[in-house]
Amino acid sequence: VDYRGSVVSTTIDQLETPQVLVDRERLIANLDRMQQIADSHRVRLRPHIKTHKSIDIAQLQLERGAVGVTASKAEEALVFIQSGKVPSVTVAYPLIDVMKIERLITDSQRHDVELRLVIDSDAGVTAAAAAAQRCGSRVRGFVEIDVGLHRCGVSEDDPRLLPLVTRIAAEPHLEFVGILSHAGHAYAAGERDELVQIATQECAILNRVRARIENSGVAVHEVSVGATPTALASETFDGLTEMRPGNYAFLDATAVRLGIARWENVALSIVATVVSANDHYWIVDAGSKVLSSDLGAHGTANTQSYGVAFTPVSANPLRIARLSEEHGWIERSGDANLRIGDRVRIVPNHACPVANLADQLVVVSGSNVVAHWPVTARGKVR
Amino acid sequence: VDYRGSVVSTTIDQLETPQVLVDRERLIANLDRMQQIADSHRVRLRPHIKTHKSIDIAQLQLERGAVGVTASKAEEALVFIQSGKVPSVTVAYPLIDVMKIERLITDSQRHDVELRLVIDSDAGVTAAAAAAQRCGSRVRGFVEIDVGLHRCGVSEDDPRLLPLVTRIAAEPHLEFVGILSHAGHAYAAGERDELVQIATQECAILNRVRARIENSGVAVHEVSVGATPTALASETFDGLTEMRPGNYAFLDATAVRLGIARWENVALSIVATVVSANDHYWIVDAGSKVLSSDLGAHGTANTQSYGVAFTPVSANPLRIARLSEEHGWIERSGDANLRIGDRVRIVPNHACPVANLADQLVVVSGSNVVAHWPVTARGKVR
Repeated sequence: VDYRGSVVSTTIDQLETPQVLVDRERLIANLDRMQQIADSHRVRLRPHIKTHKSIDIAQLQLERGAVGVTASKAEEALVFIQSGKVPSVTVAYPLIDVMKIERLITDSQRHDVELRLVIDSDAGVTAAAAAAQRCGSRVRGFVEIDVGLHRCGVSEDDPRLLPLVTRIAAEPHLEFVGILSHAGHAYAAGERDELVQIATQECAILNRVRARIENSGVAVHEVSVGATPTALASETFDGLTEMRPGNYAFLDATAVRLGIARWENVALSIVATVVSANDHYWIVDAGSKVLSSDLGAHGTANTQSYGVAFTPVSANPLRIARLSEEHGWIERSGDANLRIGDRVRIVPNHACPVANLADQLVVVSGSNVVAHWPVTARGKVR
Repeated sequence: VDYRGSVVSTTIDQLETPQVLVDRERLIANLDRMQQIADSHRVRLRPHIKTHKSIDIAQLQLERGAVGVTASKAEEALVFIQSGKVPSVTVAYPLIDVMKIERLITDSQRHDVELRLVIDSDAGVTAAAAAAQRCGSRVRGFVEIDVGLHRCGVSEDDPRLLPLVTRIAAEPHLEFVGILSHAGHAYAAGERDELVQIATQECAILNRVRARIENSGVAVHEVSVGATPTALASETFDGLTEMRPGNYAFLDATAVRLGIARWENVALSIVATVVSANDHYWIVDAGSKVLSSDLGAHGTANTQSYGVAFTPVSANPLRIARLSEEHGWIERSGDANLRIGDRVRIVPNHACPVANLADQLVVVSGSNVVAHWPVTARGKVR
């Protein structure tokens, strides 16, 4: 097992709280598992770095076979481009700001990184073409297809679809590379069977869109999907060339709820201390500034809990019923009792914003701290 | 009007988005207003810095008459102690970690800052006394009273109350300074009248507790309350010596909803750009990584919206119905239309986590950018 960072001889119990922990063995197992899924279905893996924002973890993903990374935010993509450690970066966001795109192209040229953009509007084509022209470059562009989340992308039956593809293909400074989707509505699924359906449907939509585009005379080199729930549940990868899951590196309470992970697969957790107690709640020192207030991804409220706490007093994890900025409110349950000073381990609903709120990840193996990894690309508000 | 930071000659329209803006004139008016309330009721103002985490804004508060600042997180308090610009700091959190307390005492001694701690348990007394003894210091401690939020603090009728006070008063390295409360349940109020009731009740509870403690022979020098809704709505400050509101500096959609502010009082907003559109939503480039997912404070869900967007196409602000990490989903309303590339101004539900998510605040006056203030104390997870 490969890991990086300064090795420090301390145990989790010696850490001040709250701290965001990453279990090294679980992380590695999660990375290996997804690479195996990609390999077995002969699709390339291009992990989304929004989950970890860590050059260290991206390197572990690349070493295992990832072909590059995906980012949503231009400023996060820049961090990975500038690292000199990533061969190819897809910015899976409908950028329309020429300055942002120009900066991405310039830095990609400088660091010899392949850059791929995502476009879902005429404004996006215009901006990408203008930026590429200014840089004297030719940039690869995907068209995003809306497969059910109804956020970004052009839906299958939208009359804008073919003209958009044709326009990109005709732009001398752009190269139409293929179609891309994000089945984020999978996070609202009630159970694993729904995930399989959503993945099957996504695959069918993309294959129909691909056929339509190719019938119009434009080649579709890439068909890229990306979401951890569908990546882990899917049985159909026919016609797909690439997947871009992100959350799979850590997983979280949402993944457990969706039936795609067990608690012992979750690599990210928070160690916190009980600092106060009353008749209804134990109060721990991890609040929304550590856990975020996410109830699920994309504003999906698939739970009434802000995460769960594993405690010495209960076999099952306890519900975090409320959050203040610096306080987690653990609901008392049964006769079990926690004492002030006791420590708990919290699994958040959504691991990605937790990493974004931390400046570093404390890497642990068993009860030992083995490294500190900076969250290199966090804090890029603009 | 006094302000600091490098002056830059640019307008809001020229900024890349998303950016967190602070309207200088509104900020100053909010700071002046709260100082006037404190002065008129003859209570001291000790603002909570969790809202802004900015040394620049703390200085504006101190210049107007604030006697010091309040922090919840030991690590944020340290930033203000180490700045050398704050005479007195209250850490309004039930610290039980001797190391954290020792660090606070040591740095307070070094920078000649008065330090006040908050205690609500025997573990808290033991930790504070041990740390103070190690530093050869005598530290002031409040006992926190639970006035209805049911988070931290000892309730009025709790048999632990008097023994806790007595124990602090008897510790040679501690000095019992008084009682402190946070009426955070006010954020769940439906209307302004409820805020008045909660403030009146808080005041009555604290005066009864003060009388009980003084009858037992221990002097109560300070009776400290702190929450923006009660500070702005309250009619009764009898017997109080200090208030510790924080959010009043910026205000937000929650303050408007509670009837303690109008939209034109809100000093913090986010400028964002429409990057995509579909039949149901306009998608802007400010998501939960800028706005947070807070529906209210303390996990209170007093709205179904993640903030509101002021747009050129609608007289009333539009609802942000969903959030992804990098996307705000503005619900389409009526026939009005936004175009890709249009800019919107978002007022978040809760300003405090927004400042925490940003590395800097862009200070504006009208449509001009006049300064950049670092969010000095952000990112202190532990």
